[in-house]
Amino acid sequence: MFESILIANRGAVAARIVRACKVLGVRSICVYSEADADLPFLKEADEAHEIGPGPAPQSYLDQEKVLALAAKVGARAIHPGYGFLSENADFAEKVIERGIAFVGPSPRFIRAMGHKTRARDLAAERGLPVAPGTQLVSDNIDDLLAAARTIGYPLMVKPAGGGGGIGMLPVHDESQLAAAVERSRSMAQRGFANAEIYLEKLMRTPRHIEFQVVGDRAGNVRHVFERDCSAQRRNQKIIEEAVAPGVPRDVIEALGEKIARVLTDIGYDNIGTVEMLMDADGTFSFLEMNTRLQVEHGVTEEVTGIDLVASQIRLAAGEPIDAVLPVPPKVSGHAVQARVYAEDPKRFLPSPGVLSTFRVPEGIRVETGYGEGCRISTFYDPLVAKVIAHGATRAAATERLSAALDAFVIEGVKTNIPALQTILRSQAFRDGQVHTGLVGEVMAA
Amino acid sequence: MFESILIANRGAVAARIVRACKVLGVRSICVYSEADADLPFLKEADEAHEIGPGPAPQSYLDQEKVLALAAKVGARAIHPGYGFLSENADFAEKVIERGIAFVGPSPRFIRAMGHKTRARDLAAERGLPVAPGTQLVSDNIDDLLAAARTIGYPLMVKPAGGGGGIGMLPVHDESQLAAAVERSRSMAQRGFANAEIYLEKLMRTPRHIEFQVVGDRAGNVRHVFERDCSAQRRNQKIIEEAVAPGVPRDVIEALGEKIARVLTDIGYDNIGTVEMLMDADGTFSFLEMNTRLQVEHGVTEEVTGIDLVASQIRLAAGEPIDAVLPVPPKVSGHAVQARVYAEDPKRFLPSPGVLSTFRVPEGIRVETGYGEGCRISTFYDPLVAKVIAHGATRAAATERLSAALDAFVIEGVKTNIPALQTILRSQAFRDGQVHTGLVGEVMAA
Repeated sequence: MFESILIANRGAVAARIVRACKVLGVRSICVYSEADADLPFLKEADEAHEIGPGPAPQSYLDQEKVLALAAKVGARAIHPGYGFLSENADFAEKVIERGIAFVGPSPRFIRAMGHKTRARDLAAERGLPVAPGTQLVSDNIDDLLAAARTIGYPLMVKPAGGGGGIGMLPVHDESQLAAAVERSRSMAQRGFANAEIYLEKLMRTPRHIEFQVVGDRAGNVRHVFERDCSAQRRNQKIIEEAVAPGVPRDVIEALGEKIARVLTDIGYDNIGTVEMLMDADGTFSFLEMNTRLQVEHGVTEEVTGIDLVASQIRLAAGEPIDAVLPVPPKVSGHAVQARVYAEDPKRFLPSPGVLSTFRVPEGIRVETGYGEGCRISTFYDPLVAKVIAHGATRAAATERLSAALDAFVIEGVKTNIPALQTILRSQAFRDGQVHTGLVGEVMAA
Repeated sequence: MFESILIANRGAVAARIVRACKVLGVRSICVYSEADADLPFLKEADEAHEIGPGPAPQSYLDQEKVLALAAKVGARAIHPGYGFLSENADFAEKVIERGIAFVGPSPRFIRAMGHKTRARDLAAERGLPVAPGTQLVSDNIDDLLAAARTIGYPLMVKPAGGGGGIGMLPVHDESQLAAAVERSRSMAQRGFANAEIYLEKLMRTPRHIEFQVVGDRAGNVRHVFERDCSAQRRNQKIIEEAVAPGVPRDVIEALGEKIARVLTDIGYDNIGTVEMLMDADGTFSFLEMNTRLQVEHGVTEEVTGIDLVASQIRLAAGEPIDAVLPVPPKVSGHAVQARVYAEDPKRFLPSPGVLSTFRVPEGIRVETGYGEGCRISTFYDPLVAKVIAHGATRAAATERLSAALDAFVIEGVKTNIPALQTILRSQAFRDGQVHTGLVGEVMAA
């Protein structure tokens, strides 16, 4: 096992990795921006070092600063968390070149999956279902129209350089196409420094179902079931659950096995998530693969009892998958997570400020990284806390989650808790009728 | 479902019941003593009423005051929690006589199980294994010596009027017998207002394994597996886990089924716990039955996904067991709980005071009822918090628990966290070699 791990991240995920380090007896080395100096979990870390001023590019995204610090303090591994440098293949390569282990898959997988059309091609070649779509498209309007006609409308213009919903724009007919392509390209350039885009068939209200995979350094990959993350607001997940309600288990198991086989064939070598869309008729298509820990990993941990973060570190350190995973992994009950964001619950705009009062519910798993008096700044993601409820049934877990959200006392920022409660208490959600249009429908009602 | 429940208790268990009420959509009505006015969970309750000054007899144990308040506020049910009035059959009868539901079994079961020799007789009659023991004994020394000879030394002098370790004294030879009987009798009189005592064979270092049972108002009883609570200090449980390590599952399942059958035969009608001792050779004997929620119910909840408190309330409201329990209940992974007490970690003496700093670990289930600035007083149990860790394996859950205990920041009172860590990290505990002598051995080492 590594003697020490530098955690190149902040907030709830940095706190989560510190906990995993403690479980494994590994020295945890945190970094923080000036703006984050008062985050309470920094005191839990074995070391904490400032790496620059507030905005992320000058601290958490500054590769050389992170690498120089890792060298100086003698870190044996770097855990990138999610976001920031977690899916940056160049960074992972530099880490490895300097003799430090990268807690994630080999850089070639980060690179392959980071490019969305290449990832889709790879999935299709290996027999995974993909939605109708194009290769990269040019700006020539005739070529664009021809490409669009091969898949039909409505379609989605999507950046190839990165996922997460950034720059994805729906197009309902030919008249919208050129403008959408131009706008998506500019967002893609800004978000991923890569203006390549492609077109893909738009499903009306698909379900977002993703498979958690776990692989060891020898490339043996297993799946540890799926999560349903259909409850999204503007392509941002806000409620996630394990397992997916109402999908036959044999269908899920067969797809999970197939995904694990494909990834074993290519030798994928750490944890990752294969995101699929499920259409109203039950057809699955490959959406993308994330080569890192997910924000919603906790729901899988709750239903399987597996510590995914500790497992990820152990796998990165070379432990074989049989030593890390229970055989066979099993699902018990149901888990639902809600993301509490600092935002105006009506207008969905960020609501930065100081958590002048911040009481979190007790008796339930809450991950925050913040404490009373901390500032939710505009520099970073406005996620305040994740709450993860486990129960014997989906209804029980949902009730428990809803009760926990009621017990938050937060003053100083507005939060989306009222919106989360509206969704959790809606008949559609209770019935398991989740799809990516659900949040919009429920909030409009 | 009840429209409202009055919670006749305090601290972590009262907070836990408030949460269950929220899950069920039931109005929660708390009571508090003057000393407890600042407990933070009172703000989570729908109502909170003061019922008297600090010492428990003048507030939480004052039956008439609790009943008068319940009548005044129109409570439809009373949940007694654990401790205080929870195993007082007279109180349960008075509750029911006044047209209020009692969240617990029918009073006749509380009465039958509350008297320890009667409970043992009942268990033996129904075919459950019991340790060699006597009926109630007199103070006549010749009778005492004769009774002791029938079971042999070492033996335990035990109060018949109540359990929980109070007044239990070991006797290693005839010379100690009369003094132990006298002392136990006086402790029993003080603790239970009942000086009756009996003798029972003393096992050297048995394991304490208890079965959680769940019954509906029609008397259908099932078991939802066992907990191992062998890690005790002076007969007080401090670390509990589900399920029991190293005991063959078929042995446990068979005993659990047998216990459930016996309780179905007598029509037991709410949740309860059958405590057994397991000798070094694997022989089980009935110890006692608790007709209430246990402090350690959380570990069962974690491995089964069942919300025991919500289930208890639903069963008390008349729901059938098939509607309340998953069929069949299943165990997933392993859970370990540690009890954090305000006490000197070396001398095990209570350490009352104000929690001037009180930061609890995040990302894990913690139940406390306290917040920063609250006072741990000498009026009540010095339990500060329970921490419950779940993992795929016992080792993973234990590591997670240990990491969480490390993350507590408590100033103002001393706690037993160092002792808990010593136990959790001992080779004997890690190997699953738990027994009631473990804590003493580990702490002496």
